[in-house]
Amino acid sequence: MEILKGACIIGQSGGPTAVINASAQGVIQTALANPNITRVLGAAHGIKGVLADKLYDMGQEDPAELDLLQFTPSSALGSCRYKLADPDVDDTDYQRILEIFKKYDVRYFFYNGGNDSMDTCNKISKYMQRVGYPCNVIGVPKTIDNDLSGTDHCPGYASAAKYIATSCMELYQDARVYDTGTIVVVEIMGRHAGWLAGAAALATWAGSGPDLVYLPEVDFDMDRFLADVKKVYDATGNCLVAVSEGIHYADGTFVSEAKTSATDGFGHAQLGGLAAMLAETIKQKMGVKVRGIELSLLQRCGSHLASKTDMDEAYLAGKAAVEAAVSGTTDHMVALDCRRDSSGYHCETKLVPLSQAANTEQKVPLAWINQAGNGVEQAFIDYALPLIQGEPQRPVEHALPRFSKLKKVLASGEV
Amino acid sequence: MEILKGACIIGQSGGPTAVINASAQGVIQTALANPNITRVLGAAHGIKGVLADKLYDMGQEDPAELDLLQFTPSSALGSCRYKLADPDVDDTDYQRILEIFKKYDVRYFFYNGGNDSMDTCNKISKYMQRVGYPCNVIGVPKTIDNDLSGTDHCPGYASAAKYIATSCMELYQDARVYDTGTIVVVEIMGRHAGWLAGAAALATWAGSGPDLVYLPEVDFDMDRFLADVKKVYDATGNCLVAVSEGIHYADGTFVSEAKTSATDGFGHAQLGGLAAMLAETIKQKMGVKVRGIELSLLQRCGSHLASKTDMDEAYLAGKAAVEAAVSGTTDHMVALDCRRDSSGYHCETKLVPLSQAANTEQKVPLAWINQAGNGVEQAFIDYALPLIQGEPQRPVEHALPRFSKLKKVLASGEV
Repeated sequence: MEILKGACIIGQSGGPTAVINASAQGVIQTALANPNITRVLGAAHGIKGVLADKLYDMGQEDPAELDLLQFTPSSALGSCRYKLADPDVDDTDYQRILEIFKKYDVRYFFYNGGNDSMDTCNKISKYMQRVGYPCNVIGVPKTIDNDLSGTDHCPGYASAAKYIATSCMELYQDARVYDTGTIVVVEIMGRHAGWLAGAAALATWAGSGPDLVYLPEVDFDMDRFLADVKKVYDATGNCLVAVSEGIHYADGTFVSEAKTSATDGFGHAQLGGLAAMLAETIKQKMGVKVRGIELSLLQRCGSHLASKTDMDEAYLAGKAAVEAAVSGTTDHMVALDCRRDSSGYHCETKLVPLSQAANTEQKVPLAWINQAGNGVEQAFIDYALPLIQGEPQRPVEHALPRFSKLKKVLASGEV
Repeated sequence: MEILKGACIIGQSGGPTAVINASAQGVIQTALANPNITRVLGAAHGIKGVLADKLYDMGQEDPAELDLLQFTPSSALGSCRYKLADPDVDDTDYQRILEIFKKYDVRYFFYNGGNDSMDTCNKISKYMQRVGYPCNVIGVPKTIDNDLSGTDHCPGYASAAKYIATSCMELYQDARVYDTGTIVVVEIMGRHAGWLAGAAALATWAGSGPDLVYLPEVDFDMDRFLADVKKVYDATGNCLVAVSEGIHYADGTFVSEAKTSATDGFGHAQLGGLAAMLAETIKQKMGVKVRGIELSLLQRCGSHLASKTDMDEAYLAGKAAVEAAVSGTTDHMVALDCRRDSSGYHCETKLVPLSQAANTEQKVPLAWINQAGNGVEQAFIDYALPLIQGEPQRPVEHALPRFSKLKKVLASGEV
């Protein structure tokens, strides 16, 4: 197999995470050190930066600032939610991408994102194959939702899970401080998968967490929910509830639906406002003090609570992508292959076809959710707990986070 | 002066903080070691525990668990919002408190809270003096709002400030990740004082924080606010705004008022829902993508981001309260006396009369707020920055917080 020599592009796409930049750092530093990669380009706002010919020359960055990327939340290069058309219907974008690839002699394309981003990556990969432009395309997984298939879990998930579990432990202490009783509903992200909401149960497992946890894998029933809450409140005088933003009734209607109408660029309903709505419903029904709390963006950018395991795996996924690409692999996504046994937790990377990862949602197995549909089984804890381990030595200045400061020098087209 | 010998009671009152238990630890451990204090009693849910004769025998706790109190958020003994009547109008509660004090031979009473709690403390102190029951009463300051007068700042404030500043730094990274632009409004606690909202400006000072910060010390004007936001958005394509829950129009009406009706036990309006309302107003006016985020309880129980300085000072305040009381002082609150000069930041304790601390609100000086009323001056930063310094070595188990577990053995009345 011919070894390609040329520039590479790294793009970040979709909702950011606490460690997505660790993957970028893994790609950039590995690519900068590789003799077959002549230039490392960072796409401004993912594929939109490619289309707009807005590419940063990562070789001009201060290496010390690149080292700080792993501690910097959100997408340092900028992200996008941009859906490429079906190339059979409209190949305008693809022609433009090819033009840019040729302009910069791009022979490696790395795209870091979730389901939709893997779809983008897959379409670009297939197009380049079809037009016979040699370019190795590798997806780097990222999503706090953990709903990407083909991988044990997804970089970004564990840090959000740790943020959620820690915050729920603290909230549990606070939410039961008065003897007058309070019911607190915490709304957690995750779309149609309950991986993040389930992480709230890690707090319960640790002795200070939600009494009830609702995942979207189980149809929601408002009467049963209210009865669950009443039972806990009657028995203990308080109740902490964690709900996934994606909970829905048996007919598929989102519980939050009445509250929202906006959609994102992919046509997904933008979820939110659910905690306040459920708290209000409980208040009307039970006449008790309630509070709705939405963890909102905090849970996906809480890098100060990042998992060291997650951070290291995110870096590793980026590094493995470059290594696979320069070894001649294309059209694949890096995945995590993990083992949990008596000797502990072990993780290494593997490669899965992009088509497998694109647009398939990995849900929490029903066997990991309890019979009552208001909590998780030990199997979920055994799965998630190893992922949140380890406290990174995050750099601070004046006791505040020291984030990476990139120069973002635009690359010129002259190769 | 006769040295009193007898039991002491420590009570926690009002909204909890990340380090209120550090003060409890300071009181309990200092009291347990003092030969003039025969028994250390923890009141369940503050003064309500005294009235209900529900007192925990702190001497029966595992010392290692007491050591963990400082890392445990919220009020470990339970809190309350209970307003004692004017004793001239109705002295029922006071008679009951005296009865309990006699039953347990209580000669020292320590009450840890904010303005309202210092009012409670002051009333009890004055009553005991009037009826000639020797008992030294010392208040221990606590409030995230930082609105207690007579003290440079209040234990609990700095940890909430650090949580707010760190979260805003992370949100700033996240809220500008797309090239499509977003306006994010973050709602911060603090009631009628802008100390906590101002802490968001520490993030801005550190290079990753709100573009605009609104404190309740300045009358709010919706048109000016919308113009401020538009100006930033037009110039940068994004805008992060921090607002205090207590912002109000010139006529005193809370901006959030339309959204809330509930009041707490002291008749204060319960504030909240403001971020969503302002975000919606911006959306209607500007037609851009918005998001409202309420830091809610998270900011007052975020012990994983506690300031070491705050934690140490909270402990010190509790310790100083016991030392003052056993030295014969009564009717005072411990206050923090601080110096910020070229040699750094220095803090020691002093004592102020309870009557001075009770029911007076300390606001942010207007000179510390910028001319436009949408940010703070360097004087605010110089004041707040030293307070958030230091990272405690917080204990974790399986990468999750290890909170103190108290046995809470009820004390019997036999002395």
